[in-house]
Amino acid sequence: VLIISNQSDFIILIHFIFVSVFLQASDLIITPATTFKEKPDPTGLVFGTVFTDNMLTIQWSLASGWEKPYIKPLENLSLHPASSALHYAIELFEGMKAYRGVDGKIRLFRPTLNMERMARSARRTTLPTFDQNELLECIRKLVEVEQEWVPYSTSASLYIRPTLIGTEPSLGVKKPTKALLYVILSPVGAYFASGSFNPISLWADPKYVRAWKGGTGDCKLGGNYGSAIYAQQEALEFGCQQVLWLYGDDHQITEVGTMNLFLYWINEDGENELATPPLDGIILPGVTRQSILDLALNWGEFKVSERYITMSDLTSALEENRVKEMFGAGTACIVCPISKILYKGKHLHIPTMENGPELTTRFLNKLSDIQVRCFLFYNQIK
Amino acid sequence: VLIISNQSDFIILIHFIFVSVFLQASDLIITPATTFKEKPDPTGLVFGTVFTDNMLTIQWSLASGWEKPYIKPLENLSLHPASSALHYAIELFEGMKAYRGVDGKIRLFRPTLNMERMARSARRTTLPTFDQNELLECIRKLVEVEQEWVPYSTSASLYIRPTLIGTEPSLGVKKPTKALLYVILSPVGAYFASGSFNPISLWADPKYVRAWKGGTGDCKLGGNYGSAIYAQQEALEFGCQQVLWLYGDDHQITEVGTMNLFLYWINEDGENELATPPLDGIILPGVTRQSILDLALNWGEFKVSERYITMSDLTSALEENRVKEMFGAGTACIVCPISKILYKGKHLHIPTMENGPELTTRFLNKLSDIQVRCFLFYNQIK
Repeated sequence: VLIISNQSDFIILIHFIFVSVFLQASDLIITPATTFKEKPDPTGLVFGTVFTDNMLTIQWSLASGWEKPYIKPLENLSLHPASSALHYAIELFEGMKAYRGVDGKIRLFRPTLNMERMARSARRTTLPTFDQNELLECIRKLVEVEQEWVPYSTSASLYIRPTLIGTEPSLGVKKPTKALLYVILSPVGAYFASGSFNPISLWADPKYVRAWKGGTGDCKLGGNYGSAIYAQQEALEFGCQQVLWLYGDDHQITEVGTMNLFLYWINEDGENELATPPLDGIILPGVTRQSILDLALNWGEFKVSERYITMSDLTSALEENRVKEMFGAGTACIVCPISKILYKGKHLHIPTMENGPELTTRFLNKLSDIQVRCFLFYNQIK
Repeated sequence: VLIISNQSDFIILIHFIFVSVFLQASDLIITPATTFKEKPDPTGLVFGTVFTDNMLTIQWSLASGWEKPYIKPLENLSLHPASSALHYAIELFEGMKAYRGVDGKIRLFRPTLNMERMARSARRTTLPTFDQNELLECIRKLVEVEQEWVPYSTSASLYIRPTLIGTEPSLGVKKPTKALLYVILSPVGAYFASGSFNPISLWADPKYVRAWKGGTGDCKLGGNYGSAIYAQQEALEFGCQQVLWLYGDDHQITEVGTMNLFLYWINEDGENELATPPLDGIILPGVTRQSILDLALNWGEFKVSERYITMSDLTSALEENRVKEMFGAGTACIVCPISKILYKGKHLHIPTMENGPELTTRFLNKLSDIQVRCFLFYNQIK
């Protein structure tokens, strides 16, 4: 029983009955672009520089909740210069891909995991949460509208970038009362153009720390990325391509650039082991990371561990020839072999390529297969 | 001797001779608003919600350097939805104030310290640096254009918010090739409306950590703020107004909400001491913090220390009645007395108000005096 005690409560009740405050895909208003950009050749594309003709936008306010979602021509955002995203990084994003399969069908890869992580990021940065299925349905509709932008290729895909930003025009450091959720799409080429791997070199220096206990390293917030670029620049100056992020006095290995890290080795107990750092608050819970763990556990051929690995564990294993392969894992490249680490002035050679890389290649092929052939994990667009 | 080896070098040379790539105040193009908003009563204003009629904007690109600065009517920014500030928090800001003195003159308080910090923040987040004096001169001009917005009051002021954001429309996580520097102004009332202090209560819980060694806590980057709001919400739920940020296993006291922290006490050696945590990489080097240290050292009446203080140091001192005053310090409130800390489920009473607060009041009065009477540190606008 709801007792309406006064007029303002009544008005609020009316508002909730007649105006949807929830994000609902059935409210979608679709007014797509009528002029079309030329679709680029997916080979040789620079990641995230070409965008499709349309975007999804959904406004939110504390007073009105989620407004109707729009699919409309891609255009610049008009933001008040005091918007909280621009001052206090009240912002988060996701990264996922739509693939055109060998059967002509378009699929998303485990998109519910992205929606869950996005909702978790929203809570951590005090942005509004949303019905994850409804948002996914809006994204599915956007990809459907833009289906001709999904490359006709098994080695290229359409990158999907959901973004949620605080737009309250106020300089107070506080939970925002206005926000904008939007999704843009960008066709991306094969990460490894030749089909073969190009192994990368890493710069490992404890002087920069990506994330820490009690921080936000396990959410996909803008602030985790902007603070990392300086170290990335320094890595380039040392002739390395990415940063190997260390943590703590014992120099724990955590992540690689913007990817999760895996080590395939013979561990201290003489077992074949695939190891990746545990989700203890400083590691981003990657969808590719989870999928690799799921596959490896399913195969049951070697030990699979979420465990700490220190630089001293690694150097001992290298000296004792116990390291087989090391690779990064993420949505952009799927997997990315690692061949060198610059640490304390010494170049450590990682014999990933000499060992095939057998396991890294197997994961790449298996995950690519799933993405274009849909054995598992799929969400079919059309 | 410069030898021009080929045509493209020659074109680059011509470009640098005829087009300014440096930020230059003499290039300012001023086209001020011709319609004016009503100026609000400065008492009762909510911080950072009302903005003046004009803004300063300066575009930067890797190809062309800094373009001409503009002072023009305040308007929404038109930003590509892939702008790096919105995804990776490639953004920084400053906070400073213009005061109308008892002599009718308008002054900025130690603005060169803000310009220095802003340039340091720019380097840390791989945004372009600039000639600090030239930017300050542009800001001075903006305040001059908006001089009627500087409250006719010694207890209110015009808050100045310089902002620098990455605007490259690309999803690559990298140093931006496009940026926008802008400055907006907001009249702000007296922080303590009654002229007397309202002491605040703090929530100290080690589960959230504001900043860490190897991170960006000593720069004024957006990412440091967005990640802090969740803890601020939790503090409110526990009936406290701000977060007391702790660090490390020994629960070092670091900052208060968005302010630096000072403790005036009888230290372990029986000396009267004003203590604040040292600038070891996790502390924001506040302009008010520095000014308080400068004043106290100049007075020479008690020991002044940049030193570590742990929660256990504090609780021991409270038990032994050695704590005199505790306060936050920042541009917004100047100084803000602290009366209570909720730590490990216990309410620690801080006897700041019982002790006057003598020193806190003295700093408030002295700094306010400087700001409106200009004994020290001033930069006169007009």
